[in-house]
Amino acid sequence: MNQPLRVGLAGLGTVGAGTASLLASNGEIVAQHAGRPVEVIAVAARDRGKERGYDVSALRWLDDARLLARDPEVDVVVEAIGGAEGIAREVVETALDAGKHVVTANKALLAHHGAELARKAERNNRALAYEAAVAGGIPVIKAMREGLAANRITSVYGILNGTSNYILTEMRRSGREFAEVLKEAQRLGYAEADPSFDVDGIDAAHKLTLLASVAFGGIIPFEEVKVTGIRQVSALDIGFAEELGYRIRLIGIAHSSPQGVRARVHACLVPGESLIGKVEGVYNAVVTKGNFVGQNVSLGRGAGAGPTASAIVADLIDIARGHILPVFSAPAHRLKPVRMMEDYRGSYYLRLMVVDKPGVVADIAASLRDENVSMEQMIQRGRAPGEPVPIVITTHETSESAIERASRRLATIATIVEPPHIMVIESLE
Amino acid sequence: MNQPLRVGLAGLGTVGAGTASLLASNGEIVAQHAGRPVEVIAVAARDRGKERGYDVSALRWLDDARLLARDPEVDVVVEAIGGAEGIAREVVETALDAGKHVVTANKALLAHHGAELARKAERNNRALAYEAAVAGGIPVIKAMREGLAANRITSVYGILNGTSNYILTEMRRSGREFAEVLKEAQRLGYAEADPSFDVDGIDAAHKLTLLASVAFGGIIPFEEVKVTGIRQVSALDIGFAEELGYRIRLIGIAHSSPQGVRARVHACLVPGESLIGKVEGVYNAVVTKGNFVGQNVSLGRGAGAGPTASAIVADLIDIARGHILPVFSAPAHRLKPVRMMEDYRGSYYLRLMVVDKPGVVADIAASLRDENVSMEQMIQRGRAPGEPVPIVITTHETSESAIERASRRLATIATIVEPPHIMVIESLE
Repeated sequence: MNQPLRVGLAGLGTVGAGTASLLASNGEIVAQHAGRPVEVIAVAARDRGKERGYDVSALRWLDDARLLARDPEVDVVVEAIGGAEGIAREVVETALDAGKHVVTANKALLAHHGAELARKAERNNRALAYEAAVAGGIPVIKAMREGLAANRITSVYGILNGTSNYILTEMRRSGREFAEVLKEAQRLGYAEADPSFDVDGIDAAHKLTLLASVAFGGIIPFEEVKVTGIRQVSALDIGFAEELGYRIRLIGIAHSSPQGVRARVHACLVPGESLIGKVEGVYNAVVTKGNFVGQNVSLGRGAGAGPTASAIVADLIDIARGHILPVFSAPAHRLKPVRMMEDYRGSYYLRLMVVDKPGVVADIAASLRDENVSMEQMIQRGRAPGEPVPIVITTHETSESAIERASRRLATIATIVEPPHIMVIESLE
Repeated sequence: MNQPLRVGLAGLGTVGAGTASLLASNGEIVAQHAGRPVEVIAVAARDRGKERGYDVSALRWLDDARLLARDPEVDVVVEAIGGAEGIAREVVETALDAGKHVVTANKALLAHHGAELARKAERNNRALAYEAAVAGGIPVIKAMREGLAANRITSVYGILNGTSNYILTEMRRSGREFAEVLKEAQRLGYAEADPSFDVDGIDAAHKLTLLASVAFGGIIPFEEVKVTGIRQVSALDIGFAEELGYRIRLIGIAHSSPQGVRARVHACLVPGESLIGKVEGVYNAVVTKGNFVGQNVSLGRGAGAGPTASAIVADLIDIARGHILPVFSAPAHRLKPVRMMEDYRGSYYLRLMVVDKPGVVADIAASLRDENVSMEQMIQRGRAPGEPVPIVITTHETSESAIERASRRLATIATIVEPPHIMVIESLE
């Protein structure tokens, strides 16, 4: 057997400890696939005494991860600290400069500094691998960068955040409102104490930035990804969506066309019969479309120690075999920011809360007409004279700018008592 | 740019012409991902004059594929002839012996001669790549051999034949019988004139043999895969399955346990709510379970020129990059036939056609009791005194051998007028 690949683990939280535990359990299988053993030889984490369900006594322990990143005995640094800046960024940069490969699950770091880090990795002829950063255990980066490498990828989209999908699934099942279901998810450990990365779409946007950069062979600037989350989704919307044959999902979607790239994360309506509409709970799903392969879908758990460790060790196996690819499917020096789409055209869902008075529908219709927005369907279910009731409208294809102008017009109508609630209807075709 | 990878195409049917067409359309993307151009330089096919929607005039044309396999200018032979024996086998062996890489979509050849060909490839330090042989454009071989390489794979199963799935889907939608839907599928081009490879499960068994060999790192002898197809499935069964909350699917399933490996292809009942139960039409779906990653699902088109070419060129890109792995996830000289499971335990569906006379249910119950088969549910819908009516029984977990003995007993009961129709209920857990 050849020389082992020597791994230094920076961080021993869920990701780091999971990786160590996988290598301990599946060492033989890993060595067989890698052609040589993959061994953790050193660890950097803060509290040596902490119980991690994993014996660290045989490992060299460093208190400062930056020392690990320069350690001459380490071939690969697994960065499992997290965060777009600070120590995680410093460790990755130091390790690459010191001629070490880096494997990470840190989507924030790569979404913000991917282009620069890719140049550093390629200049040093080292791997910067991040399969674990997107969709957990599902090997989507490998699938897109290698399995579908013969295709021009036209779009990639999916459910990229399990927490949000769990909350939306529970809201629909139980009819409860967002705040209540969030609290339950926090109690069950499906949502963090500070849930904003998950429910405001930021985590999904980090992942989409990476997916789209790989798909289109260019850098998607994270700031150009439009992001809204699921806080504004109400039980009312979920019910109306269902009535119209849709489900509400938090989707990250990137699409490349002659008009440029569209990349956004938002709660939107998807066909109830679509696969994405049927994915429930904490699962992730990624759909890729290529010009020869057609549509490919991958599904699996998007988070957790096991799936994340599976992805990290898959990257280590590639490195052990010397299988090192450009970070984003094109060499870093050739990556250019992609041109983003100026305006989007699609169908929309509008929910208005109106005081139930004669003439209100005429006022709404006039506002839409004045912005050339064509109504496809209108539902006014409740009747409560003088009280606010919901009116739901779906539109034919229209431009985002027109919908925004129409929305501002609608907001000025006195009988409309809340700002219009608007979501895209994604046909996913 | 580096030296091009020089490809010789053996065969210009759907697969060969599709590959040439992809390389012509997507050449730039392919070169970017491969790090160098991938060029078809020679072709061997029978009829030079035939219209293929692809200009072959610039290519060197050989009438004998065996010459192509020895051609000194060719780096990789794409074998797109087909068949487990004869010219296809000869071309692959000749090419490997001549120090060329081989890429193929030929599942029959590899299912029958995989171990021997893997030894030949590895002895010559050449790739024998076959992503296109399983599940068309879905990169399942790559996912299992690389993306999930950190896991001990415990099971792999799926819908591996689009033709059969299309027929089963149509039978359910329309309530029509097998023979009629098959004819329609043939007219629409979804089924071959001789449909037996597809509808008798042989094609799926070839693919399962490859999947299971990769999953378990050992050779699954093709002869040990139990195979039945969908000819015996009637509209009656599809209706009863639905009533019981199931769908009938042609599944290839391989499972590894301390009792050995179970590998079989059969029409069986799967939960209607399972993803596999929801996959309709010509789609393929593959589910893999690993001990760290949990369940992973991949879905896409399983056949056709585009998806197959996508997979073949992905293999060419790997070869262009020098990324060459053992053929079946362990070096060929270490592959051993895996130990097959002796007996299977599971739940079963039985449909009996009985003459509706008093006492018949008591006779059936006694036969099952005598073989220790425990009934879970019984349905006797029709009432037609003196006429044959169906009785459907589902069992609790029991052994396959017990069900077979019970079936022989039931066949001796005079009021049972057809051989018992038996299918496994796959829980897919």
